[in-house]
Amino acid sequence: MGNDALSIARDLIRCPSVTPADAGALGVLEPLLKNAGFDVHRITFSELGASDIDNLYARIGTTGPHIAFAGHTDVVPPGDEGAWTRGAFSGDVVDGLLYGRGAVDMKGGIACGVAAALDYLAAHGGQPGKDGSGSISFLITGDEEDIAVNGTVKLLKWAAARGEKFDHCVLGEPSNVEDLGDCIKIGRRGSQSGTLYVDGAQGHVAYPHRASNPIPDIAALITALVSEPLDQGSAQFQPSNLEFTSVDVGNPAANVIPGQARARFNIRFNDHHNQQSLRALVEARVAGASGNRMRTRIVWEPSNADVFLTEPGPFTDLVAAAVEDVTGRRPELSTGGGTSDARFIKDYCPVIEFGLVGRTMHQIDERVPIADLEKLTRIYRGVLDRYFA
Amino acid sequence: MGNDALSIARDLIRCPSVTPADAGALGVLEPLLKNAGFDVHRITFSELGASDIDNLYARIGTTGPHIAFAGHTDVVPPGDEGAWTRGAFSGDVVDGLLYGRGAVDMKGGIACGVAAALDYLAAHGGQPGKDGSGSISFLITGDEEDIAVNGTVKLLKWAAARGEKFDHCVLGEPSNVEDLGDCIKIGRRGSQSGTLYVDGAQGHVAYPHRASNPIPDIAALITALVSEPLDQGSAQFQPSNLEFTSVDVGNPAANVIPGQARARFNIRFNDHHNQQSLRALVEARVAGASGNRMRTRIVWEPSNADVFLTEPGPFTDLVAAAVEDVTGRRPELSTGGGTSDARFIKDYCPVIEFGLVGRTMHQIDERVPIADLEKLTRIYRGVLDRYFA
Ligand SMILES: [Zn+2]
Ligand SMILES: [Zn+2]
Repeated sequence: MGNDALSIARDLIRCPSVTPADAGALGVLEPLLKNAGFDVHRITFSELGASDIDNLYARIGTTGPHIAFAGHTDVVPPGDEGAWTRGAFSGDVVDGLLYGRGAVDMKGGIACGVAAALDYLAAHGGQPGKDGSGSISFLITGDEEDIAVNGTVKLLKWAAARGEKFDHCVLGEPSNVEDLGDCIKIGRRGSQSGTLYVDGAQGHVAYPHRASNPIPDIAALITALVSEPLDQGSAQFQPSNLEFTSVDVGNPAANVIPGQARARFNIRFNDHHNQQSLRALVEARVAGASGNRMRTRIVWEPSNADVFLTEPGPFTDLVAAAVEDVTGRRPELSTGGGTSDARFIKDYCPVIEFGLVGRTMHQIDERVPIADLEKLTRIYRGVLDRYFA
Repeated sequence: MGNDALSIARDLIRCPSVTPADAGALGVLEPLLKNAGFDVHRITFSELGASDIDNLYARIGTTGPHIAFAGHTDVVPPGDEGAWTRGAFSGDVVDGLLYGRGAVDMKGGIACGVAAALDYLAAHGGQPGKDGSGSISFLITGDEEDIAVNGTVKLLKWAAARGEKFDHCVLGEPSNVEDLGDCIKIGRRGSQSGTLYVDGAQGHVAYPHRASNPIPDIAALITALVSEPLDQGSAQFQPSNLEFTSVDVGNPAANVIPGQARARFNIRFNDHHNQQSLRALVEARVAGASGNRMRTRIVWEPSNADVFLTEPGPFTDLVAAAVEDVTGRRPELSTGGGTSDARFIKDYCPVIEFGLVGRTMHQIDERVPIADLEKLTRIYRGVLDRYFA
């Protein structure tokens, strides 16, 4: 077991920590952090109907400024393990590439964060900032890839209850698209799903005047909802987007006009909206398109994926400079893509996401160049240098 | 067991002949017809994957003119038998009403046809026409209410193979809407079902530009297909009508844009079309609406329900006169409603449908006024009088 990013990443990959299993992954980090002087907590969270999940919180230092590295040690299943070039949990290195589930999403990112912190502390007498000021912490969960109820959301609450205050957070998700250094995520769109129901009146196809067919009605509403954009985008975000994910009637009878049709949709929304205003907007559009002629209703699904944005400023500049220093390129500040645990962290402190290159995440032969692990460690080290300078 | 319509109808109703069961129903008719001099055949038809079905063909006379009465002794299930005022197979008479499944659809109609024929023959020395000319026959199947593969369609083929030639046919389905005498059906629209498929490209809702969502496309096609009428109706028919009966994707994942959507539809079409021209018309409209931008295809379902029309003329006049004679009202010549076995009979001879009032058919407490049974018997008797005059 070494302190360098490659060694830590290998040790993590060799734990088959498919959500909800920890499989020893947090146990790889705990001694490393303890030996470096971190105060390490292991906390298990529970929820009715969900698996218990292990989490880890580690902090060194007692004052601000306080920077946290966040991440998850759980991984998605390997898929067809026979299709992998190397075992999905082997941690084998071939031609300078480390193979294994989690290599980029995001055991590799965590390994770089820990390696960078240990490296920084070793170079600074074991203390984060100058004159004993400043704190570094790690917020590591085992519940991100699945329903994410016993992970970061509860870990942050637990920390807040202890009086922990974070000034900034770097979430080590694979933020880069093609090459290390091409992208820092400073925000993510929110996500809201719902189902549109249209009620008609069932009847026989031979007597349509005695029935009311909801299918042409729901078709008209689908057209209306996708025709008009929800907005034109904002300073940092692309336009909000509504996608229908299913439309269903389930009527097996060829001679029956059905009584109801439903269409499920998902909206990725930007900072022009919050959940409440978004729901009101969609409901108003449905009412307008139905002209009060149709019987419609929308059942909204609970969502904990609100939009988040960390406005560009000194902190994003600091991270971007650290990236540019190592990679020679100025990263784009992006808000694209799906959701992440940053949606929870943003309620506690400004957060950005920067990690490895996401191209192979969730795929067969997920892998990371050792060179990227080394570079990302240097970038994180650069972030710490600048943060406590 | 009597020869009057009420007695025959009761005996038939007491046989629980829910398709495919005969339950003795044809055995009620066979001795009555034999005793009156009919040559009676019982034929069982089979088909792979379907139940064997009993059928009956009876003829008296050997020459034309040859009039056939057609009908079915099978019935739809009774539904919640506890909800019936009288047992669904009781044949009870209460306040002048005969209760039971099949009372109007169409054991009652068959009973009236047989009673009328026996009455007519008794009054004419046991022979259909004058000087030994003319024939009366009964084409009775036990397979109409379900898939109808071992019924009238095969019985007609069997009869044709024997050299049987029909000049005219009266199908005793409940043709009247409100009162006995209000409606003779001289035609029925054809029926054709199909499923429209639209292929897109599956993807993640957060990256819609990498996917192609088939749901807005199928919504646009549904709107296009229901917006433009298939025709404006014809001399005897209302406009053809296309109804969507289901639209389905079946995608359970809220974050996935599906790869395919499908919509099933049924068309009731008039004599402007045959199946081939109708399919071509719909396919052309889909191609026009998709602008060759979408990947679409239609899978047509096999259909044996082509349009049929017996043009108004001497035969319809004859039946209408017999109806007016008894009921005092001139019946409307209608082509509305669903399909019937007339779609098969029309390939062999002109056919009209006239029977009881359909209001309670397929419902709890299906029932027929005894007065209607008596009137319908007199109408059929009037048809025979006129036919052989
Ligand atoms: Zn991840
Ligand atoms: Zn019927």
